[in-house]
Amino acid sequence: MSRSYFSNIEHAAHNTTFPLTDVIEQLNFNEQGLIPVIAQDYATKNVLMQAWMNREALEKTLACGRMVYWSRSRQCFWEKGATSGHTQALIDMAFDCDGDVILCQVEQIGAACHTGRPACFYLKVDAALKQVRIEGDASA
Amino acid sequence: MSRSYFSNIEHAAHNTTFPLTDVIEQLNFNEQGLIPVIAQDYATKNVLMQAWMNREALEKTLACGRMVYWSRSRQCFWEKGATSGHTQALIDMAFDCDGDVILCQVEQIGAACHTGRPACFYLKVDAALKQVRIEGDASA
Repeated sequence: MSRSYFSNIEHAAHNTTFPLTDVIEQLNFNEQGLIPVIAQDYATKNVLMQAWMNREALEKTLACGRMVYWSRSRQCFWEKGATSGHTQALIDMAFDCDGDVILCQVEQIGAACHTGRPACFYLKVDAALKQVRIEGDASA
Repeated sequence: MSRSYFSNIEHAAHNTTFPLTDVIEQLNFNEQGLIPVIAQDYATKNVLMQAWMNREALEKTLACGRMVYWSRSRQCFWEKGATSGHTQALIDMAFDCDGDVILCQVEQIGAACHTGRPACFYLKVDAALKQVRIEGDASA
């Protein structure tokens, strides 16, 4: 992993290309070999969830066109929707400027959240009232 | 930190509220005391960047209404835009179902990315061509 790799390419002009395998090689996986992945609904642009991938999960995702995460709690691959049917088809993927976050546009079937809510970010902060409000009812 | 706290409240009905200080107390900060924070443009819904906060940065952000991150590379608070002028006003904040990610809607002044590009996710993956393409020119 190398932040200098990403510093070196950051001034490359619009539409410059690099081999995907080279960039993946340089991604900044953390000390557990993981990188955060944001899943955004490609149609509504709602942020659905954030999870983690290791390099093999990333390669599986690219190969099969469906989101495959690494479950930190279960320590195994987690093909989103494999049991629930709530799959995420990969529409687009991008890396950030220092190669330590992945953003994926996905087509979400059903609910992204295990509670049955459409997205995981249903704990809404009201800073003025100093409250957190639940948005939506659980259905799972 | 407690995943069980979030499991316990996940079936609470729509509009149930909890004290903000209680929820913050239970957030799953990692072993470095940090939690990932996604910044999304509240108007365009583009995902601008992901950075990190510790508890104090979160409290500063809520108190001042502008995004204050923790810089892992510099090991200090990082008030977004303090030197560049490219501030992020906090519009809305939400926590995810297991309390380990924060999503913020922000009003971004200028560029979110240090390269001068509007957002940090300018390394676009073309899975078919096995390439990464730079989107946009750097201006900083």
